[in-house]
Amino acid sequence: MASKAVVIVSGGMDSTVLAHWAIAEGYEISLLSFDYGQRHKRELIYASLTAVRLGAPHHVVDLTSITKLLSESNSTLLGHQGDVPEGHYSAENMAKTVVPNRNAIMLSIAYGHAVAIGASQVFTGVHAGDHAIYPDCRPEFIKKLTFALQLGNEGFGDPEIHAPFVEISKTDIARLGWGLKVPFELTWSCYNGRDKHCGRCGTCVERLEALHGAGVEDKTEYEDSEYWKQAVAEFNATH
Amino acid sequence: MASKAVVIVSGGMDSTVLAHWAIAEGYEISLLSFDYGQRHKRELIYASLTAVRLGAPHHVVDLTSITKLLSESNSTLLGHQGDVPEGHYSAENMAKTVVPNRNAIMLSIAYGHAVAIGASQVFTGVHAGDHAIYPDCRPEFIKKLTFALQLGNEGFGDPEIHAPFVEISKTDIARLGWGLKVPFELTWSCYNGRDKHCGRCGTCVERLEALHGAGVEDKTEYEDSEYWKQAVAEFNATH
Repeated sequence: MASKAVVIVSGGMDSTVLAHWAIAEGYEISLLSFDYGQRHKRELIYASLTAVRLGAPHHVVDLTSITKLLSESNSTLLGHQGDVPEGHYSAENMAKTVVPNRNAIMLSIAYGHAVAIGASQVFTGVHAGDHAIYPDCRPEFIKKLTFALQLGNEGFGDPEIHAPFVEISKTDIARLGWGLKVPFELTWSCYNGRDKHCGRCGTCVERLEALHGAGVEDKTEYEDSEYWKQAVAEFNATH
Repeated sequence: MASKAVVIVSGGMDSTVLAHWAIAEGYEISLLSFDYGQRHKRELIYASLTAVRLGAPHHVVDLTSITKLLSESNSTLLGHQGDVPEGHYSAENMAKTVVPNRNAIMLSIAYGHAVAIGASQVFTGVHAGDHAIYPDCRPEFIKKLTFALQLGNEGFGDPEIHAPFVEISKTDIARLGWGLKVPFELTWSCYNGRDKHCGRCGTCVERLEALHGAGVEDKTEYEDSEYWKQAVAEFNATH
């Protein structure tokens, strides 16, 4: 019997590649998404599309009631407390999108679900670019949290939390996904929630740079598909 | 300026004593409760009463959407998958009430809230009797989780999680609460959600034994206020 894995999927490209990868590795996957009141709820629809395409169960956890609790900090991801920053996904810009302990909360819930269904793994798509910005995406954190949660569930289950992409770049993830035939146009990255990807926010720039860098034939439609080159060039010139 | 503390309150006697204790210790408290689809939602009303009485902000986090995710195990606390066990709050009986990772999930959310409001402490009312049964109520777990979450929020805040009652018994908590003039009749323990405490479920037996042991003048009304003596005597005779 295949080992079970809970895969946290946002609908973005990293976690979609992760779900395809987990299946390729032979896991029986169960997908888990979180509605935490993000502006770009659109990505949850893409997570559902992935579940249907892969024939996997998919649960969306409603965390909107914690939005207010975590939003006294200056995150622009939640609600409308500021403009989504345009330009490069640099530390200065992306620090504005930190939601305290968000990844820890999602991992704890996924862990409980994994214990409940007898899964041996919780997979998260955080990658090398994330942990420069979000302290709860760092490998040491994931390791320490796993130890804590294994202790906290002793006698009931001891799944591991794995972030297989934690040491690789988004470009590497794109390359891996391209090899796994992931339909990237059915993933969503944009922090603005309009009909098409804006092409100008930090995650759009990051996405475009990664897909181009990996040589992916990207069928995604963007409002502005050229801006990313300028943002990356400007960033490189000044850093 | 007083240090801020997030206090997790269920509406039960332990966490209500905890809130009173935190104020006596000089903290400016913010109360946090969780609706995880428990049968005894009534206790949340008692948590609100405590907040009003103490003049503290109170947030109830809706975690009902995770109920299903955690309930493939055999917990009788969630939904209606079995009868609430009567009798002594012994390990065998109470193990049926384990919800995987529940305490870890609540602590992670409380931690994020603490970071957001700049609190230095997260207080939880788990006591010595809990950690024999719930592995995520043990002091080593709380310590390891704190380390993990401090790492996961580096640069944003480093609250501590404290369980001041973790080494004392429920009778000790009752004694402490009595000294702090906690109105125990405005706390709720019963796992059945009827108008009065049943007096027969594990938590009612535990409550009655603790309040009697501490010499509290208990004004709580019970459907059966005598059964606990028999349950405790039977347990002591056979263990």
